[in-house]
Amino acid sequence: MVSFHRTHTCGELRESDIQKKVILTGWVHRHRDLGALIFIDLRDRFGITQIVVDPKAFPHVAEFHFEDVIAVEGVVQERKQKNPDLPTGNIELEPQAVTRISKSKVLPFSICDEEKEVNEELRLKYRYLDMRKSKLIENMVVRHKALQVTRQVFSEEEFLEVQTPVLGKSTPEGARDYLVPSRIHPASFYALPQSPQLFKQILMVGGLDRYFQIATCFRDEDLRSDRQPEFTQIDAEMSFATDKELFPIGEKMINAIFKECLQVDIPRPFRKMTYAECMDLYGTDKPDLRFGLEFIHLEDLAGKTSFTIFKDGLELGWKIKGFRIEGGATYSRKEIDGYNRFIQSLEGKGLVWMKLVDGELLSPIAKYIDEEDKALWKERLALKEGDSAFFIAGEEKKTNQLLDHLRRKVARDRGLIEPNRYEALWVVDFPLFAYNDEERRIESEHHPFTSPHLEDLHFLEDEPLRARASSFDLVLNGYEVASGSQRIHDEALQEKIFSLLGLPIDEIEEKFGFFIEALRYGTPPHLGFAFGFDRIMMILCGTENIRDIIAFPKTQKAQDLMTEAPAEVHKEQLREVHLDVKL
Amino acid sequence: MVSFHRTHTCGELRESDIQKKVILTGWVHRHRDLGALIFIDLRDRFGITQIVVDPKAFPHVAEFHFEDVIAVEGVVQERKQKNPDLPTGNIELEPQAVTRISKSKVLPFSICDEEKEVNEELRLKYRYLDMRKSKLIENMVVRHKALQVTRQVFSEEEFLEVQTPVLGKSTPEGARDYLVPSRIHPASFYALPQSPQLFKQILMVGGLDRYFQIATCFRDEDLRSDRQPEFTQIDAEMSFATDKELFPIGEKMINAIFKECLQVDIPRPFRKMTYAECMDLYGTDKPDLRFGLEFIHLEDLAGKTSFTIFKDGLELGWKIKGFRIEGGATYSRKEIDGYNRFIQSLEGKGLVWMKLVDGELLSPIAKYIDEEDKALWKERLALKEGDSAFFIAGEEKKTNQLLDHLRRKVARDRGLIEPNRYEALWVVDFPLFAYNDEERRIESEHHPFTSPHLEDLHFLEDEPLRARASSFDLVLNGYEVASGSQRIHDEALQEKIFSLLGLPIDEIEEKFGFFIEALRYGTPPHLGFAFGFDRIMMILCGTENIRDIIAFPKTQKAQDLMTEAPAEVHKEQLREVHLDVKL
Repeated sequence: MVSFHRTHTCGELRESDIQKKVILTGWVHRHRDLGALIFIDLRDRFGITQIVVDPKAFPHVAEFHFEDVIAVEGVVQERKQKNPDLPTGNIELEPQAVTRISKSKVLPFSICDEEKEVNEELRLKYRYLDMRKSKLIENMVVRHKALQVTRQVFSEEEFLEVQTPVLGKSTPEGARDYLVPSRIHPASFYALPQSPQLFKQILMVGGLDRYFQIATCFRDEDLRSDRQPEFTQIDAEMSFATDKELFPIGEKMINAIFKECLQVDIPRPFRKMTYAECMDLYGTDKPDLRFGLEFIHLEDLAGKTSFTIFKDGLELGWKIKGFRIEGGATYSRKEIDGYNRFIQSLEGKGLVWMKLVDGELLSPIAKYIDEEDKALWKERLALKEGDSAFFIAGEEKKTNQLLDHLRRKVARDRGLIEPNRYEALWVVDFPLFAYNDEERRIESEHHPFTSPHLEDLHFLEDEPLRARASSFDLVLNGYEVASGSQRIHDEALQEKIFSLLGLPIDEIEEKFGFFIEALRYGTPPHLGFAFGFDRIMMILCGTENIRDIIAFPKTQKAQDLMTEAPAEVHKEQLREVHLDVKL
Repeated sequence: MVSFHRTHTCGELRESDIQKKVILTGWVHRHRDLGALIFIDLRDRFGITQIVVDPKAFPHVAEFHFEDVIAVEGVVQERKQKNPDLPTGNIELEPQAVTRISKSKVLPFSICDEEKEVNEELRLKYRYLDMRKSKLIENMVVRHKALQVTRQVFSEEEFLEVQTPVLGKSTPEGARDYLVPSRIHPASFYALPQSPQLFKQILMVGGLDRYFQIATCFRDEDLRSDRQPEFTQIDAEMSFATDKELFPIGEKMINAIFKECLQVDIPRPFRKMTYAECMDLYGTDKPDLRFGLEFIHLEDLAGKTSFTIFKDGLELGWKIKGFRIEGGATYSRKEIDGYNRFIQSLEGKGLVWMKLVDGELLSPIAKYIDEEDKALWKERLALKEGDSAFFIAGEEKKTNQLLDHLRRKVARDRGLIEPNRYEALWVVDFPLFAYNDEERRIESEHHPFTSPHLEDLHFLEDEPLRARASSFDLVLNGYEVASGSQRIHDEALQEKIFSLLGLPIDEIEEKFGFFIEALRYGTPPHLGFAFGFDRIMMILCGTENIRDIIAFPKTQKAQDLMTEAPAEVHKEQLREVHLDVKL
């Protein structure tokens, strides 16, 4: 019987090991019985090594099945038919003893057939088999590395890792909480944290100075494809600082993660753009900067045309913006119709196109443009021979939204997005308030503890909607990967914000109670951010499926198909927590 | 107005900084107004620096209160009256500008008065103030270091950190689960994990090879003083290995934690003792090895006396054991009575003492011992002039229990326990089964997946209670800090264990369902352990109060006094999860 104390992994042996006596253990990945010889591909998470068995010497090997666990003791030999695709492809193992350690049942799907797509529900039910087959373990290695390097960066910067409670208090703001009934306190409930926001600010009040945590957070929301009921957040907060100190730390962390996991060096400092610039240039607060197609204003030129739709629209305050597409003059009518339908599918009226072909400006609106103005259009859009431009006219918010979608679609369709390119951007100075049309009042964009931009304090009284916040996002390749803000540390300013929001003090006390109290005992200036770790993982692993980067994910119906959670519990368990099911 | 971008922390400035212009920020720790001068002790988590203010130049400083947050710009000066107790005690700061950044309300308890004991409930309610006062931040620094170094060791050993689900499935075994009602699936519940046990074994089945995680776990138990509803566990599992590979990794981790946090080098390899030896020598499976007082068997000598109680007891199978106390002959009758009462308080009958004074064996049983046997007693107990011994006679389990308590009490009373000494011990080969007297059947000591000791397989059929398990604990200074076992990877052996436990297959399927199924697809040999991180922290920080080493702990009634969780929630929240409170 061969010991299962292996001497090497299945990915380790090379030509330099030839003639060594070794023990390998692993799973029977492939098993080809050629009569005179049996070839076994032995697999573990480190690789595959070929075992060549003489069935006359080891007759029991003929009975091995896919995914049996075996141990092989033998001598490393040079492989006759080398396999250059395999790191171990120059050697094979000639066994002196082979032991089957444990057997596998017939599999619900093949592990060695990499081509065959397996239904995701089946893969989730047999997650442990999917793990052997798919890229999941590879992704777990990336996740492991990212976790370690993240903590390393924060540790180097003297942040302390503090574990905040999972059994917390339900807060009336934000998304829906997961509740946990209390047994000791009837009719009382804990809530699982949506984020450690209040605790991390409390830590600053407590003088901890710099905090971080890779925290599991929870939201009982109807799940989108990139959401999970529990998710991971890199959470940090620091005192006596502003973004001048915080941004370089965030950048160091992102840089370190990408260097460690992908050997990519994202240049620092990251670009920075205000929310206003961002919306104007890209129509979104999370622009993908891996490609250009920046928006160009055309209102003044449009106003000079005889196109009445433009003229009427401009009187209503419309924006007319678009972007140049290098070489886009080759678009056929059919292709342009396709983009028009795309815009209409987003509830837009349509787009206007323009091309420069043989020095001539072609466009459905060309006839409305004075000959002498055509040069201005070409110049404004930087149109060169063979280029085209798309533009959209309408109310600003809608125009931005449509152009953002169009810009991304054009980039995808034209292959403008380089894979393995990573473009990071800080978007700063978000609006402090938004206007709630329904309730006819202003409300916080971020949360009521976000500091206004200090230059905009004079707006608070009379034009609060013009006030910018000291808040920011980090955008990577068009995804929001972090969000944060400077917090208010001045009691008078905090009270002014509450009063602007129309929240009377007693309501504040009820809503934020202990937290407001804490802020009254000497709060240091502080700020912080939280990174969506799962989103970063999805970018690192190049997947749009969040379940690919989580070991045991839940479905969009919040179920774990492997363990079959959630499930019914014993009546006794409900009785103990003083609850009855009410359907 | 002074910027709050500090140039230094309050613990940083030294004589070499004299004449430097700096900005310090922090809390007003002390504020002494001597009329001509105001002395402020400015504090942050890094230390305290003295600020000397001329109230004529800065009249507003007189209004500063304890715990206001201020920023001071000034020049470092040599201090006239140096304070050797303070790292910054040779310098002080002479301000050029002082700004109060935020004010503090009157405090519920003093922060600068270190002497005064504050009621723990008040400290928990104002945890952020307690943080500024107590050793809590110091302990958080230790916790931070221990967390980092733990992950570093496992990473070096090629373990992958995998985050397992918090929203899991309620299992019928073990302690009481915390439940989380599902909104999407009426009458269904998640459970918070008591440990990631099944998931980590599943990861081994999935071929992950080596897993670790610092996991938050949950148990809804009535809390003892060293328990919390949520606690932290260092959890690891490895494949194709036995304790030969696993123990050195656990030892490396413990060694690294103590080196990093306390600069203490716990020698490796750790001592190893079987459960049976342990019980015999120390009467417990978690002996404190910082002191001796090992037990000595006296049954044969007792049998030679004319003391009928011994004689009758021995016929009933009693054990008669005790330990020598060096210099213990000085115990007065009163002291010995005290120990006797101690034994009686533990429902023991009492102890027997023996002393060697002036060469003579003194003891209440001396008269029952033949003169020529006295030398044998002295020799067996290694009694030297001035020594004493305590011993106890009775049924084995009870005798061990009493002697264990007595041994620890004597060590405490005689100051035999060196502080700053750390003695680690692997206790191995626990019994596989225990006999449940009430239900008249055997049950697993650890869990039914624990492998029997391979040498004891022949006991399984006829004498299962004699079979040892391949399970182990790590004991540190008398505390169990880790527990683990080799798992069964052989299907036939697993089925035998189930049948010995009297569990029919269909019941197994119902109880362990998906997990049993997973084990059937090629399970590698694997083992693992879990460390109680909070217990390790308590040892590192030298406290018996678990709340001293957790940032936001709960009370023994499972309440967070700061946030007032658990609490009532809105009716709407309960309706959404299909529940009614039933009191």
